[in-house]
Amino acid sequence: MSGLTPEAIIQALGALVGERGLLVGADMAAYEQGARYGAGQALCVVRPADVQEVQAVVRWCVEHGVHLVPQGANTGLVGASTPDASGTQIVLSTSRLRGLCEVDVANRSVTVDAGVTLQELNEQLEPHGLWFPIDLGANPTVGGMVAANTGGTRLIRYGDVRHNLLALQAVLLEPAGELLDMGRALRKDNTGPDLKQLFVGTSGAGAVLTRATLEVHVRPSQSATALVVPTSDDAVLQLLQALERDLGDYLSAFEGLSGNAMQAAIDHVPNLRNPFAPEPAPDFAILIELEAASSKAYTGLDLQEALNAFLQDQFEQTIENAVIGNGHELWHLRHSISEGARALGKPIAFDVSVPRSQIMAFCRAARAVVAAEFPFLHVVDFGHIADGGVHFNVIWRNDASQPYDAAAVQALRDRIYAMVVQQFAGSYSAEHGVGPHNSAYYHRYTTPTALQLAQGLRRLVDPRQLCGSVDFGSAPQS
Amino acid sequence: MSGLTPEAIIQALGALVGERGLLVGADMAAYEQGARYGAGQALCVVRPADVQEVQAVVRWCVEHGVHLVPQGANTGLVGASTPDASGTQIVLSTSRLRGLCEVDVANRSVTVDAGVTLQELNEQLEPHGLWFPIDLGANPTVGGMVAANTGGTRLIRYGDVRHNLLALQAVLLEPAGELLDMGRALRKDNTGPDLKQLFVGTSGAGAVLTRATLEVHVRPSQSATALVVPTSDDAVLQLLQALERDLGDYLSAFEGLSGNAMQAAIDHVPNLRNPFAPEPAPDFAILIELEAASSKAYTGLDLQEALNAFLQDQFEQTIENAVIGNGHELWHLRHSISEGARALGKPIAFDVSVPRSQIMAFCRAARAVVAAEFPFLHVVDFGHIADGGVHFNVIWRNDASQPYDAAAVQALRDRIYAMVVQQFAGSYSAEHGVGPHNSAYYHRYTTPTALQLAQGLRRLVDPRQLCGSVDFGSAPQS
Repeated sequence: MSGLTPEAIIQALGALVGERGLLVGADMAAYEQGARYGAGQALCVVRPADVQEVQAVVRWCVEHGVHLVPQGANTGLVGASTPDASGTQIVLSTSRLRGLCEVDVANRSVTVDAGVTLQELNEQLEPHGLWFPIDLGANPTVGGMVAANTGGTRLIRYGDVRHNLLALQAVLLEPAGELLDMGRALRKDNTGPDLKQLFVGTSGAGAVLTRATLEVHVRPSQSATALVVPTSDDAVLQLLQALERDLGDYLSAFEGLSGNAMQAAIDHVPNLRNPFAPEPAPDFAILIELEAASSKAYTGLDLQEALNAFLQDQFEQTIENAVIGNGHELWHLRHSISEGARALGKPIAFDVSVPRSQIMAFCRAARAVVAAEFPFLHVVDFGHIADGGVHFNVIWRNDASQPYDAAAVQALRDRIYAMVVQQFAGSYSAEHGVGPHNSAYYHRYTTPTALQLAQGLRRLVDPRQLCGSVDFGSAPQS
Repeated sequence: MSGLTPEAIIQALGALVGERGLLVGADMAAYEQGARYGAGQALCVVRPADVQEVQAVVRWCVEHGVHLVPQGANTGLVGASTPDASGTQIVLSTSRLRGLCEVDVANRSVTVDAGVTLQELNEQLEPHGLWFPIDLGANPTVGGMVAANTGGTRLIRYGDVRHNLLALQAVLLEPAGELLDMGRALRKDNTGPDLKQLFVGTSGAGAVLTRATLEVHVRPSQSATALVVPTSDDAVLQLLQALERDLGDYLSAFEGLSGNAMQAAIDHVPNLRNPFAPEPAPDFAILIELEAASSKAYTGLDLQEALNAFLQDQFEQTIENAVIGNGHELWHLRHSISEGARALGKPIAFDVSVPRSQIMAFCRAARAVVAAEFPFLHVVDFGHIADGGVHFNVIWRNDASQPYDAAAVQALRDRIYAMVVQQFAGSYSAEHGVGPHNSAYYHRYTTPTALQLAQGLRRLVDPRQLCGSVDFGSAPQS
């Protein structure tokens, strides 16, 4: 830390970004509180108007040893974009880095400033029949999506952000304020180490991301949806394999919804209908979505008909019921689960993944652990079966038989993550990344050699560890 | 270097890998000569039988300061897998690391030892209806494919090796001989820096790759092919965009073939027919391939009919001729170009890429440069239009008006690469990577900041720069 007074720091940064670029006091509230975790206190918030201002701020922070936390739309779920409680960190918001959103239609790519949001990006792409097909329940910035390596519900078809990232621009801490362009608008380019990979999925640690070039895709012209009930757990993977074999060119989502998850949404989200009514929601259902970008005039393909015919043949083999539905209605159910779960009580969220061949076995085992060892808790699990991701969320219900107890929550976290990592060869953070919320598990489950390498990487670009809220290379934080 | 005599080194390494694992003298010939470039002299070749032997060799080499060059099937095209001329480097061949090839069908992944070849891998996958869809004119090992980040002709549909790499195992030089497992058989896993990225596309520098987990794909059940003649250069990109809009779910290849390239193949490769006969080969043609993995029973789709209908509508808009052909025959023409070109004289190969929106403009400009400044040379260009890659190959014909002149070749290289990088925002190495053959351009076109970062990366895993034939972090080599 600099020895400067907070007032002196605010004054110096204000001189670099101007009055519009500086927030203090109550204006900082939205930047200090994370979407799910993270509630800190910033020294101030700076909002540089362009990359030159980012460079000036970074240079000044390095010179004076001031810690900065890059922040996009602050929609992350592990507390990585908010300051700690010390009141000594500044938030560097990229929200004004929005000058460029340049579509190269023939290259199917877009070069876009870090502060542009996913929704804005897709609005720019729409007239060209293109989209950036990352689907998730938030509207992050492009910079935030790169820092989180966002996945979402359609990863099985389009990949994550890393798969679609052609080039990246960042402001480094070492050399202080240096602008580094990594990659170009190219699909094939193998010219030494791919440096941009160092800044993908690392939660804003070590550099401020300022611009990205993304591959974009042809917008689908038709889709088909169904909500199906499998005959058994084992049938789920058989169904997925049959679907990939028979209609794999089109599979864009294969989402598992537990009965508890559907029920929570149906009970608590207004205007949401039980698609199985008058029957109750089943123990488990799968939302299948197919998408085709091709023209029916040439293919003659009717996706919904193809899906229906496929499901007909699966009846009594892998499925016992199917709702062929309005896609919007079925997705609304899927996207309402989190809201429904929150209405029940305090969620304890697990964003985990396992090899998808193990996913049903994992969910069964994890539910059994909760029932046996934490019987006062309520499991509301749902997930992206096809990519192995599970939101194994557990609710401490408002009407639970025991009052909320942080030690029990901690014990549950330790127990479930240990199962995922040690027993099922999985990941304790599938798509939300690592932030202060879960960095203890990073330190627990990263081998000493990997930790040493991560430490070395961090030292290369940010030797004093001034940028970001997670230090991937340090000794374990308590 | 160690101070040990060559004999002492050979004896010590022989003790680690046994008689079967050691080659000296004339037995080394195939390991000393690269597929296109690279002709050196090894001190000896070691072929460890398993990962423990790799660790022992690496540990010994680090302790004694002996330089090692990892080698897979030695099919690379930039000289990265062969020793230099000093006679002091050993080749570490991964050809005996073949114990594991484990398919997880439900996870659509395979965990495979580095020495298994692409063809062997696909033979293992075939009974499961799966494949690893990298298509290229060689049969590399899995380790070599990761080191080169192999792309090939179907990148537009399946991505390159990086896109399909779930996990990687490597033996590091620092800590010496340490085995590092990076990633798991997961599609979603964001737990800190993705360390495996450091070893993808870096030509074997800094570590010995021993095992990989790859995502694999459903084998297509039908395909369609056509060789079409565009009405103009501009029409090529219009055709590509129309194809992606109308049949983009299926597009697996969109290969440009210049008239010279087709003619070289037709004239010099036995049993190769001109598909346009009795007309001569046109100035430019595009090989289009569509693939579908879905079942016709559900989709009703006949891909060849769909492609034919599409092409019918493109007549007089973007195309003026089309050969609806036997796929094998058309691909045979495409894959015969290199052989045809070699028959004409000495090839000067340019494996470059540009944003695909610029690809026709680049080819036109580059052909004009050769015609104006190097009129005694003959251009035989072909490429992967849809991914922006071009093999802008130039032949010093046996019957050229001037005798072969290394200085002119050097001048041509400098000229073309400068155009690609500076004028067309492209890459001087699209899919072959960087090796001794082209590392001068790495140093020319990498910024000082990127070079410094690459140097830092190398020092983390291989501080004495003992592994591999390229040093991405050093000062320029002459």
